[in-house]
Amino acid sequence: MTPITLDISMSLDGFVAGPEPSMEDPLGKRGEELHEWVFGLASWRQAHGMEGGETGPDADLVAEHVASYGAVVMGRRMYSGGSGPWEDDPNAGGWWGDDPPFHVPVFVLTHHPRESREMQGGTTFHFVTDGIDTALDRAQRAAGDKAVHVAGGADVVQQVLDAGRFDELTVHVSPVLLGSGTRLFENVDGSRVKLELLPVPASPAVTHLRYRVVK
Amino acid sequence: MTPITLDISMSLDGFVAGPEPSMEDPLGKRGEELHEWVFGLASWRQAHGMEGGETGPDADLVAEHVASYGAVVMGRRMYSGGSGPWEDDPNAGGWWGDDPPFHVPVFVLTHHPRESREMQGGTTFHFVTDGIDTALDRAQRAAGDKAVHVAGGADVVQQVLDAGRFDELTVHVSPVLLGSGTRLFENVDGSRVKLELLPVPASPAVTHLRYRVVK
Repeated sequence: MTPITLDISMSLDGFVAGPEPSMEDPLGKRGEELHEWVFGLASWRQAHGMEGGETGPDADLVAEHVASYGAVVMGRRMYSGGSGPWEDDPNAGGWWGDDPPFHVPVFVLTHHPRESREMQGGTTFHFVTDGIDTALDRAQRAAGDKAVHVAGGADVVQQVLDAGRFDELTVHVSPVLLGSGTRLFENVDGSRVKLELLPVPASPAVTHLRYRVVK
Repeated sequence: MTPITLDISMSLDGFVAGPEPSMEDPLGKRGEELHEWVFGLASWRQAHGMEGGETGPDADLVAEHVASYGAVVMGRRMYSGGSGPWEDDPNAGGWWGDDPPFHVPVFVLTHHPRESREMQGGTTFHFVTDGIDTALDRAQRAAGDKAVHVAGGADVVQQVLDAGRFDELTVHVSPVLLGSGTRLFENVDGSRVKLELLPVPASPAVTHLRYRVVK
């Protein structure tokens, strides 16, 4: 069965975005600090069409993650970023650029039907209006022998957890306290999710946590 | 200056105690799961008057922590556990036993004055009614050339963070989702706390996080 995985950066106090997200600041105030460990890595830069960058265990982990998935599932707000009511906005999703960094089919969970958008570089956005299980099923079929990467936001991650559909969770804990914003784990029925810690490489910039979800 | 340190176990979703703490379950529902990684370690068992147990990097880390502090600061609820309104209860604090596992002076933050209690094995409970800074100052004087260990609960940790008094934070992230309970980091003014990640040993049972607080 095509595995469903999470790979997300979180603050020490549990936030995956800062408060007051906006067009200028789609990750919320100080939200970019969660991702500082990744911006300089060669493998991340390559996926985003840039050259150069650092190699090492962190870059290898990101390269492994990028190579692992054949489809992505994300929420509507992650797709449209800070742009307004996106169902009326033909440019919604524009912040991902003409060549988004996914390079695979991306299934966007939404209440508003919309035609698929084929972008450059292999990314096609598909819009799914009938719930998380359908989005995951379609992504699994599209992923072939690779994994489905659940990209976020937190509400989508919580839906996938509640549906018992995750196989593996990777959380990168950045050395940051945000104080407020969007929590990754909120209202999760913890008794239903049993985790098994998996080995990860040590990093001087961030703490990688990886778990197998025991089914 | 005598350093002030934290060493606490937390769930992946940020809780240091489960919901509904009681006399039978002072750590709340499923709260004991946060500490499962430590119960079998030789160094932890020794501090609690028991023999045997496992050695290795986790046991070494616990031994290093136990040896590091010369005084402890804790909150009233951590002192009295699940026992009722403790100011009326001569047996409050009894759940720590006649020979509590601290073996140093312990400063309990409370609104109710009470005479110090000298226990077996080097632990003396002192009761501090004039605030966190006084508790920390007294603990620093008592600790000599060792550290002050802030034991919890979460409200006391948050007061020490807000007062800008921590020098080092160690958080052990257990592979558990509790879903509800007491969060370690709640209403923290994150912009005031700058962290620097420190190296820690890898463990198959738990993820150790250690930070220097940059002043």
